[in-house]
Amino acid sequence: VAVLGLGRIGSAVADLLASGACAPHLEATIAGALVRSADGRRATTPFPICTEPLAIFDARPDVVIEVLGGLEPARTVVLEALSRGIPVVTANKTLIATYGDELFAAATRFGTPLRCEAAVVAGVPFLGTFAARPLAASVDRVTAILNGTSNFVLSRVDGGVAFEEALADARRLGYAEPDPSKDVDGSDAAEKLAILVRHFARLSIRPSGIAAESIENVGPDEMRAARALGGRIKPVAVAEWSSPDLGCFAGPAFLPEDDLLGGLGGVLNGVRLERRGSAAIHLIGPGAGPEVTARAVLDDVVEALGGRQQVGVGALPRASVGPPASQGYFVTLRATSLPDAVDVADLLAAHGVWIRRWDALQAHPDGELRAFLTFPCLPDELLMALRALAAASACAATSRPIVEARRD
Amino acid sequence: VAVLGLGRIGSAVADLLASGACAPHLEATIAGALVRSADGRRATTPFPICTEPLAIFDARPDVVIEVLGGLEPARTVVLEALSRGIPVVTANKTLIATYGDELFAAATRFGTPLRCEAAVVAGVPFLGTFAARPLAASVDRVTAILNGTSNFVLSRVDGGVAFEEALADARRLGYAEPDPSKDVDGSDAAEKLAILVRHFARLSIRPSGIAAESIENVGPDEMRAARALGGRIKPVAVAEWSSPDLGCFAGPAFLPEDDLLGGLGGVLNGVRLERRGSAAIHLIGPGAGPEVTARAVLDDVVEALGGRQQVGVGALPRASVGPPASQGYFVTLRATSLPDAVDVADLLAAHGVWIRRWDALQAHPDGELRAFLTFPCLPDELLMALRALAAASACAATSRPIVEARRD
Repeated sequence: VAVLGLGRIGSAVADLLASGACAPHLEATIAGALVRSADGRRATTPFPICTEPLAIFDARPDVVIEVLGGLEPARTVVLEALSRGIPVVTANKTLIATYGDELFAAATRFGTPLRCEAAVVAGVPFLGTFAARPLAASVDRVTAILNGTSNFVLSRVDGGVAFEEALADARRLGYAEPDPSKDVDGSDAAEKLAILVRHFARLSIRPSGIAAESIENVGPDEMRAARALGGRIKPVAVAEWSSPDLGCFAGPAFLPEDDLLGGLGGVLNGVRLERRGSAAIHLIGPGAGPEVTARAVLDDVVEALGGRQQVGVGALPRASVGPPASQGYFVTLRATSLPDAVDVADLLAAHGVWIRRWDALQAHPDGELRAFLTFPCLPDELLMALRALAAASACAATSRPIVEARRD
Repeated sequence: VAVLGLGRIGSAVADLLASGACAPHLEATIAGALVRSADGRRATTPFPICTEPLAIFDARPDVVIEVLGGLEPARTVVLEALSRGIPVVTANKTLIATYGDELFAAATRFGTPLRCEAAVVAGVPFLGTFAARPLAASVDRVTAILNGTSNFVLSRVDGGVAFEEALADARRLGYAEPDPSKDVDGSDAAEKLAILVRHFARLSIRPSGIAAESIENVGPDEMRAARALGGRIKPVAVAEWSSPDLGCFAGPAFLPEDDLLGGLGGVLNGVRLERRGSAAIHLIGPGAGPEVTARAVLDDVVEALGGRQQVGVGALPRASVGPPASQGYFVTLRATSLPDAVDVADLLAAHGVWIRRWDALQAHPDGELRAFLTFPCLPDELLMALRALAAASACAATSRPIVEARRD
C-alpha cells in the first residue's frame, strides 16, 4: 500500500501494519509514503518517502491510502489512482464532502473501489453497509453527533465547566486539534453531514451550504436551564428530506435527556437513522482518534482488495439546503430584571410563538435567567418575537432548536 | 426468488416485493413458494405453491429465501440450494445456530452466498459488515438485548406491571408468539448469541450449552429494588472470550441505568461490542417484526445477487462454554423478618462474598425485602453463601449477575 500523509493517522496505519494485527486477513507492507516535507524521516522509516505527489505511483502500490487531509494534493492523487485502477481508501472527510461527485464518478467510470468509512464515525462501520442495502438505507432523517471534540466540550460544560476551560481540557487530552475552530464552529460536522446526505438522501450538497452554528457561547448556566427542562444541549447535525426538500442543521441543539443521543457523553459519536413507521436505528461508538481511524482505513483496504465498491454513490443530483422542519425551540432569557412570564408569553404569542414549558426563575451574576421550550414555529417567527421581546424588556435571548426522535 | 414459508415473514416478503418498494435496486418476482399445507392458498397467490420441499427447485429460482423457521425441512432445502449454486437468504436463527457449521461449510465448498442478517437484530445490518471487516470484528466481548418480547415484558414490569400481565400485553400487541416460552426462558436469545459467537469469536457452540435463565420470576418489587441501587433488570445475552475460554449467559441481569443497554426500553434490541483499550460500539434498533425482517431479507437478496458471501464464517472450532467472569451480583432477600444488614454481610463474607452497596429495607406483602450489590465473586461462592443465609435466617434470595461495560 501507498500511504499519503504520515501525520497521526498515517503513522497509526504504519504502526498497525507493522504490529501484525491485520494478519491473516491482510498481509500488506507499505510500498511508499507521501509527505509534505521529508525532514529527517527518510532515514527513520523502513519504506521509501516522497514529497512529489505523483511520484508515489513509482512505488507501484496495490492500494492507495489517503490520510493527508485537505483538498490538494489529495484530490489529484486520488483521481490519478482511480484512473490507473488502483483502489483508494480515504479518511478525508473534507475531500469527500467537497469532491464526492467527481471522485465517485471517477471510481464508477474506471470501476475502481473508493472507500471512505473512516471519514464519518470512524469507529462504527456503516457507510458501506447501508450503501449495499437499499431497503435499510431508505430513511428520511439522519440525526447525529459527528464531532467528538465538541461533544466532549459540551459534556464538560454540562458538568459545570466554562467553555474555554472545557476546550483547554480537550486540547490537553489530545481530543482537539491545535486549531479547533472547525470542531467548535460546526463546519467539521457539516462536512460529515454532507457525506451522510450523499449516502442516505442520495443528494449532492456543498457543506458550506449547511447552516452551522458554533458551540462557543453555550455556558454552564444555559446547560443547567436545559436540564431543568428535561434536556441537554448537544452538538448535533440533522438532515431530513422529502422530495424535493432537504433541510440541514449543524450546531448546538436541545435534545431530551432520555434520547439516546441526548445521553451520549464524552467524545462518543452517534448516528440516528429514521424512517416513518419504523423504530429508529442508533449507531454509537468512537468517532475519531488515530488508532480507531487507522483500523477503519485498514478494514476498508481489506474490503477494497475484495473488490468491493461503495455501491450507488456516484454523481448525484445537486440539492439546495434549507432548515429542517421546526420541532420548537429552547430559549434562554437573561436580563437585569426579567418581565413576568405571562407578559413574555403574551408578546411571543402575538408573533405566533407559543410556549410549551417554562423552567423556574434563576438568579444569575448579571441579573436573572429563565428558559422555556416553544411549540414548533418558523425560524423567522421566533426571530421577530425575540427581537420584539428585546425591544420591550432589554433582555438577551439565546435560542437552540429542539431535536427529537419521531414518535411513531 | 423462491420463498420457503408463507407465515408472517414470508407474507411480508411477498407484500414488499409486490409493493415495488425494492425497485430499482431489486427487480424480483416470486417464482414459487413452499408451504406446509396449501389449504386454499393456491387460488389466492399469484405464484405457484408447493408442499413438497424439493419441488421448490422446479420453479428455477435465482435465490432461495428461507423463512420457514425450525430445522427441517429448512436444513435439507438450504443444503440442496447451496449445492446447486443458488444463493440462500435465511431469517432462521434456530437453523443457523444449530447447523451453522454444516451450512457455512457447504456455502464455502460450493462458493454460494449464504446470508442471515435477519436472524439477529433484524433491523440493524451488522453481521455481514463485521464479517468483512476483520479489525472492527476483533472484539472480545458482546453484550446484547436480543429478544424484543422479553425486553418489552421486563420494561412493563419496570413500570409496575406483574409479569403475567406484561406477557399478556405483549401477546395482545402481537409482539409475543402464541407460545412465548422461547422468548421468556432465554433460549431464543441463546440461539442468537450462538450466532454472534460464531461471527465474532469465530467459535462454534451449541445454543443449548449456553446457561439460560427465565425472566418469569422477575417482578415489580425486584425491579424497584434494582432502581434503588441505580440499575434495571434487563434480558441480556453476554459472551466473552479469551483463548481458550468462552463464557456465555442469557437471562435477566442487573445493568446500570446509565448503560445504553440498561436504558433500552420497549421491544428494542441492542448489541454492544467491546475491545480492550477502545470505546465500545453500540448498535440499537428494532429486532424483529414481519416488515423489519422482510426488509433485512430482501437487502440480503440484493447483496447475495451481488455475489457477496459472508466472509470467514465457515466451519469453526467447537468450543465449550462456561460462565462469563463475574462482575458481581444483584441479590434480593425476602423474609417475614430480615436479619440485620451487618449479620448478613458477616455471614456472606465468611463465604468470600463481599457487599458493595445496600438499598433501604422495604416492606413487602409477605414481610420485608432488601437488595444489595456484591463485588465480583465466583458463582459457587454466591450459591454457598446464599444457602448458608437461607439456613440461618429463613430468607428467600434471588440473584442476578451484574453486567457492566468495561471502563477503560
